[in-house]
Formats: sequence, structure tokens, C-alpha cells
Amino acid sequence: MQFTATQIAILLNGTIEGNADVSVSSFGKIEEATNGQLSFLSNPKYEEYIYSSAASIVIVNESLALKQAVQPTLIKVKDAYSAFAILLDAYQNLQAQQLVGIEQPSQIHPTAVLAPKVFVGAFSYIGEKVTIGEGSKIYPQTFVGNQVSIGKNCIIHPGVKIYHHCIIGNNVIIHSGTIIGSDGFGFAPLADGSYKKIPQIGNVIIEDDVEIGSNSTIDRATMGSTVIKAGAKLDNLLQIAHNVEIGNHTVIAAQSGISGSTKIGNRVLIGGQVGIVGHIHIADGTKINAQSGVSKSIKTSNTAVTGSPAYDFTAALRSQAIARKLPDLEKRIKDLEQQLSELKK
Amino acid sequence: MQFTATQIAILLNGTIEGNADVSVSSFGKIEEATNGQLSFLSNPKYEEYIYSSAASIVIVNESLALKQAVQPTLIKVKDAYSAFAILLDAYQNLQAQQLVGIEQPSQIHPTAVLAPKVFVGAFSYIGEKVTIGEGSKIYPQTFVGNQVSIGKNCIIHPGVKIYHHCIIGNNVIIHSGTIIGSDGFGFAPLADGSYKKIPQIGNVIIEDDVEIGSNSTIDRATMGSTVIKAGAKLDNLLQIAHNVEIGNHTVIAAQSGISGSTKIGNRVLIGGQVGIVGHIHIADGTKINAQSGVSKSIKTSNTAVTGSPAYDFTAALRSQAIARKLPDLEKRIKDLEQQLSELKK
Amino acid sequence: MQFTATQIAILLNGTIEGNADVSVSSFGKIEEATNGQLSFLSNPKYEEYIYSSAASIVIVNESLALKQAVQPTLIKVKDAYSAFAILLDAYQNLQAQQLVGIEQPSQIHPTAVLAPKVFVGAFSYIGEKVTIGEGSKIYPQTFVGNQVSIGKNCIIHPGVKIYHHCIIGNNVIIHSGTIIGSDGFGFAPLADGSYKKIPQIGNVIIEDDVEIGSNSTIDRATMGSTVIKAGAKLDNLLQIAHNVEIGNHTVIAAQSGISGSTKIGNRVLIGGQVGIVGHIHIADGTKINAQSGVSKSIKTSNTAVTGSPAYDFTAALRSQAIARKLPDLEKRIKDLEQQLSELKK
Repeated sequence: MQFTATQIAILLNGTIEGNADVSVSSFGKIEEATNGQLSFLSNPKYEEYIYSSAASIVIVNESLALKQAVQPTLIKVKDAYSAFAILLDAYQNLQAQQLVGIEQPSQIHPTAVLAPKVFVGAFSYIGEKVTIGEGSKIYPQTFVGNQVSIGKNCIIHPGVKIYHHCIIGNNVIIHSGTIIGSDGFGFAPLADGSYKKIPQIGNVIIEDDVEIGSNSTIDRATMGSTVIKAGAKLDNLLQIAHNVEIGNHTVIAAQSGISGSTKIGNRVLIGGQVGIVGHIHIADGTKINAQSGVSKSIKTSNTAVTGSPAYDFTAALRSQAIARKLPDLEKRIKDLEQQLSELKK
Repeated sequence: MQFTATQIAILLNGTIEGNADVSVSSFGKIEEATNGQLSFLSNPKYEEYIYSSAASIVIVNESLALKQAVQPTLIKVKDAYSAFAILLDAYQNLQAQQLVGIEQPSQIHPTAVLAPKVFVGAFSYIGEKVTIGEGSKIYPQTFVGNQVSIGKNCIIHPGVKIYHHCIIGNNVIIHSGTIIGSDGFGFAPLADGSYKKIPQIGNVIIEDDVEIGSNSTIDRATMGSTVIKAGAKLDNLLQIAHNVEIGNHTVIAAQSGISGSTKIGNRVLIGGQVGIVGHIHIADGTKINAQSGVSKSIKTSNTAVTGSPAYDFTAALRSQAIARKLPDLEKRIKDLEQQLSELKK
Repeated sequence: MQFTATQIAILLNGTIEGNADVSVSSFGKIEEATNGQLSFLSNPKYEEYIYSSAASIVIVNESLALKQAVQPTLIKVKDAYSAFAILLDAYQNLQAQQLVGIEQPSQIHPTAVLAPKVFVGAFSYIGEKVTIGEGSKIYPQTFVGNQVSIGKNCIIHPGVKIYHHCIIGNNVIIHSGTIIGSDGFGFAPLADGSYKKIPQIGNVIIEDDVEIGSNSTIDRATMGSTVIKAGAKLDNLLQIAHNVEIGNHTVIAAQSGISGSTKIGNRVLIGGQVGIVGHIHIADGTKINAQSGVSKSIKTSNTAVTGSPAYDFTAALRSQAIARKLPDLEKRIKDLEQQLSELKK
């Protein structure tokens, strides 16, 4: 893809200094960029490079006062760094959108239905009666089990595994190594001390606009569905157990775990390494501090909690502060006891 | 596969109302099911659908009193929901058992020995001198390293990686993304502050009837074996370090970690996000509460512990309750000090 | 590969008893080894087997006093067990070094540049303009995204996923299931309560001699780089967030998580299940106990901390010990109050 200085200036709402017709097809750092490349100058300590740069176009800060003439065409913007970032991101999205078609070898069951503009990477496995919506990208080495449904414009990164019968909405992003729909952890104890597996015949439903990080695990429901509602954002290495529900626009940081059948409300914020027991409800807007252990339902919206077991955030912080002074408190009690016994003599 | 109402009624110990010879070949929800499908009615709020349902067979509760005649053949059972679940599970097992043969492309070393009725999914890699027992299913994208042995009737879900020389028993289930036999975390510090890798030349042994969730990691022993004993049930995202032993029928919930060389007894129950230090023993029947940190051996069977560091469950709960009142205790000490100093005036 | 007793004795600095020209090509346990195999005897309780062993060579302790003549050639060393381990490790390294070439099917973009003696396993995917240095081994089912650079003599275990533009140094080992360069967890809240994804356009840089365990996740930087410096050793199931820096020879145990933009110094020791908040600095040589939660920068080198929130190790242990006596402290306060009120009557 080729872009002219004019096109880029329009995109960034910048002004051009130099030849507006020059065009670029790739990116380079200011100290390395060659003819045909776009670069940027933001940090003043790199300014010297612009005077010798072979880049065709350089994005610079409006505030830059050049000490001598330069060869590249300049595009002046308020913040060169973020302008360059916007451009790079747009470029990567553009590239990703051009990923279309079926790479070989891949295995796509004849009963699977792929909409137009779908990409399926090499070594991916698409099972029976799978449906994949328009514009979705299934990267290499992904497993999509029988009768899974994937909506439009999803990005399923390399190596994701989606078990049979799970349902993924539109605009969903799932990062590498995440497992959707593995069996819930359910076993019935037998008289001899061993365990019998309880069949896990439900599924996982992931609604629109959800993003899930890498190497997370979302178990299928025993019956019914484990549900991640629209707009929720889930980080890496999360454990979401069977029959859990995560509300709209709820955000969960890395390494947290939600136990079976717990329902998390909307717009809840959960820090990293939090644990939440099973079969409870967490009210809308709750804030749960990192490393907390939540053992009871939280019924009042917008509550903040911390600690393990977790309770009111402010009260818990106060107790934690005093807990550090426990050796002093103990000494003061001992002193009191001694004084009192002397008084009583 | 086709099943008649008679066959299903026998399986569920139910009674037939209607044509006993009608047959079905798939499942559908009561509100969507078509001719040739089996459905169920459990929740009374869906009762209206049965009067217009095109399903060939519907499983219903014995207690259901119909308000008018229906077209489908009915099979009456005590609990329609769980009867349907049993049926669906049996059907999925039947389907899974029919998975037999080698999908292509897959890579199976000529020295590997596969018993009859083995399934190997596409993009799986089976190394030198691997043996796989009768009826085992190796799903797609799985890696089975050199000289690994897998027993009978195992289910290895998509994307599992089993390093060389590990041994898997019979009836073992391993969920997607779990890694068996990666190197133990062992490094010898050198004089210059850097570390030298200690070779990890042992293996992992997983005995019969073990189930392991998704994205867990079980490291190979430095020498000898990391062992998961028969009947143990391990959840998702667990860390089992080198040379650990997990006892029979021990259950470990998600995101817990067991450090190197620790031996866990039989029928131990370990909650989620528990950490256990290395080189200790945990007695049979111990119960370890979620998020506990166990730093010492537990020698008495059937002990219950909680907290980080963990100690006696009941005592720890009592201390945790009082810890919440610390600001009050501090105030009471202050009051006492003041009263006493006044008394002494 | 064939090795004579002479060759092995030289390698182990041992002395030969018996035929120095006999050769072996594989390994076996003392009780099972056959002609042409090498074995060892370390544990005295296995001594009986040496008198009937068909092994061609057995490594034994110098201290072993035989009760009768034996058939195998003996190689006497100080510690037979560790000598055998060294040998087995050397053998496995030798075998691994012989892994060279491209297994099929694999997908290697025509613009990728592979140095001599590189191995690429089946079902691996090597993207555009990837470079792989001499002697590096890319095991099966690995994903190497566009423009990734991998140095010399790296071992990338099966199923690792490396996103585009990441940079891996020399002698790096990455275990199965680890994800390098997935998107950082960055979302901007919008007025309607939903979130907008912040583009993650940086990368991950892993320097020389780093080892990373299995199923860890290292996110790419928002801009710039997430950096793991030379010699760092990272265990399984770690979360390293966007823009984090990990110092030289720092060691992090399993299931710990480092939040965004935090900088960890050199030779820091971090226990298992530790959580560290974002945007802080941890000084060189800090020791962080398992399950700690670090919420503030640690500015003094070689500090030891524990607890959640973490503070000085010794002080925290003292407070933890007294926290267990809280029911007693509360009772003593109550007693004091009562005595004082009686005194005041």
C-alpha cells in the first residue's frame, strides 16, 4: 500500500512542509528510515537524525524549530508520537482486514458455513456445522469445535481452542491460548472415596464486543450457559468456572478466578489475582481490589472491598494499618496489665 | 443414529404415551424442534410450546397434566430435565466413541504404536516410540513427545502438549492447553550473579482415572517422577512443580500452585488460588481453604486450615473476625491508658 | 550414536573395570537393561541386580564393594547417580542438536530468513520477514508472527505463540503454551459506560539467556517495548503486563503477576503467586515472599518483604504471629476494662 503525504496529512489533520506528492509504503525509525519510508520525530534528543534522514516523510511536532533545511517532507501535528501511533494502528488494522481466505493446510468440515471475507489460518480446525460471520479472522492453529457459532468481525488469535456448541458474538477478540468451553469442574463423591464425573453438557456464550486476554479458561456450564455479557473486558490467565455470568462492561484483571454459578453484575471492576467463591451475586458497579477473596454476596451497588476475606475498602485499610502495629499494641496491653496489678497491690 | 421412543423409554425407565415406534435422530428445544427430533419439557413456563411442537418425541415430567391433546409421542419420567441431560451426555459419549482413525494431515512417527480404536485428530504430532492404548482419543493439534505412553480410553483435548517420556494411565482426561512435562524450575546460582540451568531429566506420571482441567502446567521431575496418583481431579490453571506427588482422589481447585518436591496425601481437598511451599507433606484428608498459603507440613489427617500463612481453620476465622475490629481495640487500649494515667494522678 | 566405555569414562572422569572397548547406544534401568545398554547403580538396595545385569556398561560409586564378579564393564565415579544424570542430559542435548531441518507440513513465508542448522517442527507457522538464528529449534505447532526476530540457539517448545514484531535474543528457552506479545490490557472508558480498546502497537523484547516456563503470558507494550532482560528466569503461568521491565538475572516463581509499566530491578527474587501493582519500581536484589501483594515502590536494594499489602519481612512476620493471638488480646483488654471499672467504683 502506498500513501502520499497529502493523504497522511488529511488523516492526521496536519500541515505539510515540502513535496506533498511524495509517497511512502512502510515505516522506519528516524535514525534508520530509507527512501519510501515514513518516520516520526518526537523526542528532542533524536533531532540530529532528521538532518541526515533518508525518510521520504517525517511526522514532527508543530513546536519543532528546525536548525537547518531537511530533505524529507514534513507533516506537522500537535503530538508527533501519538499521531504516528494512530497511523501505525490504522495501518495494522488495514493489513488485518486484508487477511481473507483459507490458508492450507487447514481442516474445515464440509458442513461448516463461512461468510464472505472470512480468514482461516493454516493448521486451524473447523468442526461440523460451525458458522463464522463476515469479516471474522481465525488465526492459525485454532480449534473451533462442532456446531460453534462465531459472529461477524471477530479476531480469534493463534491457538485459541473453542469446544463444541459454544456461541461467540460479533466484534469479539480472543487472544492466544485461551480455552472456551472446557468441562466445568464437577464431580460427585462416591462411597469409596473416589469421584464420578458430572457430565458438563451446557456451553459458553460470549456476547458482542467482548475481549479476552491470553491463556484464560472459560468453562462450559453443567447445563445451560456460562455467559460473558456484551462489552466485558477480560485479561490474561483468568478462570471463569461453569455457569458463571459476567455482566456488561465488567472489567477483570489478570489471574483472577470466579467460582461456579456466581453472577457478576454490570460495570464491576475486579483487580488482579482476585478470588470469588461460588454461588454468590456481586452487585453492579462493585470495585474489588487486587488479591481480594470475596466469600459473600455483595448486594449494594458501587461498594468497594478489599482483603481476604474481603470487606469494606476503607475499614479494611484501617485495620490493615493497625495490624502492622500489633507488636506495639501487645506491648501496651502488657504495660497496662502491669500497671494495673501494681495499682491493686 | 436413530432411536425409537421404546429404546429411549427403556433407557430412562419412563412410560410412553403415543406412538412407541416413532424415531428421532437429533435434539431440539421445545420451541424449535422439528419432525425427527427429540425434545423435553421441564419448566412450566414453556408448556404452551408442547401443544404446537413438531418434535417427534418429548420427554416430560410425570406430574405434567396436559390441557389438550398433543402431536408428539411423550415419554414420562420423574425429572424431565435431568433425564434429557443423561440422554444428551450418553449421546455425546456415543458420538465420541465413534471418533476413530487418523485424520490428515497429522504426523505420526513410524515407530509409534497405536492400538485399535484410537483417534488422532488433524495437526497432531506423535513422536518416536509413543504408545497409545485402545480407545484413546487424541484431539487435533496435540503434541505427544518421544517415548510418551498413553493408556486406554483417554481423552486428550485439542492443543494439549505432553513432553517426552511422560506416562499417562487409563481413562485419563486432559483438557485443552494443559502442558505435561515441561522443565522443572531449577537453576544453580553462579558466582557472577547469573544462573545455570539444572537439567530436568525426570518425567511426569499420571495414573488412572485422573482428570486435569485446561491450561494447567505439570512440570517433569529433576530426576525421578512428578506423580499424579489415581483418581485425583485437578482443575484449570494449576501449577504442579517438579517432583511433586498428588495423592489418590485428591481434588485441587483452579489457580492453585504446589511447589517443588511437596507430597500431598490422599483425599485432600484444596480450594482455589492456594499456594503450598516446597518440600513439605500434607496429610491425608486435609482441607485447605481457598487462597491459603501453606508454609509448613500438615501432619495430622483431616486437619482444616485457612489463611496466609495458613493455620487451624476455626482459630484463623476467629482471629480474622477480631482483625476487623482492630480500630476499636486500639481505641479501647488508648482509653484504658488514659483512665489509668488519670487514676494514678 | 555409539559410545565406548573409554569415551564415557573420559567424559565422567571415571575409572574403568572390565572391557574398555565395549560400546553402548542407549540407556536402561539396572533391573531391565539389555546388551548394548548403559545403566547405573547408586541406591544399595538395587545392588543385587548388578550380578545378573545384561547391561554392557554400568556406572557405579567408587565406594561400591562388589560381593562377586559381574558381567558388565564398570565405570567407577564419585557419585554414580549424578554422573548418569550428566550423561543423560548431555545425550539429550546432543539429540536435540541433531534436530535440524524443516518438517512438513509447516508454513514458512517466502520472506522469512532461516540460518543454517535451524529446526522447524511440523504444523509450525513462520510469518513474513521472520528471522531465525543459527541452531535455533522451533518445535511443532509454534506460531511466529510477522517480522519476529529469534536469535541463535533458542529452544521454542511446542505450541508457543509469538505475536508480530517481537524480538527474542540468543540462547532463549520458552516452554509450551507461553504467549509472547498478546495485546496489553488497555481500554479507555467512554461516557456510556462502555470501553474503547487502546491500540497496543509496541512489542516484547526478550534478551539473551532468558528462560520462560509454560503457559505464561507476556503482553506487548502499548508503545515501546515490554522487556525481559538478559539472564532472567521466569516460571510457569506468569502474567507480565504491557511495558513492564524485568531486570537481569531476576527470578520469578510460578503464578506471579506484574502489572503494567512496573520496572523490576536486577537479581530480584519473587516467590510464587506474588502480585505487583502497576507503575512502580522494585530495587535491585529485593526479595518478595510468596503470595505477597506489593503496592508501593521498593527503593532500597536488597529489601525483603512479605504480606498483602507487603512490608518489611521481619516486622510482618512478627505482626502475623501476634494476629494469631488476637482472641487472647481482645480478652485481655476486656479484663483490663473490667478491673479498671471495679477499681474506679
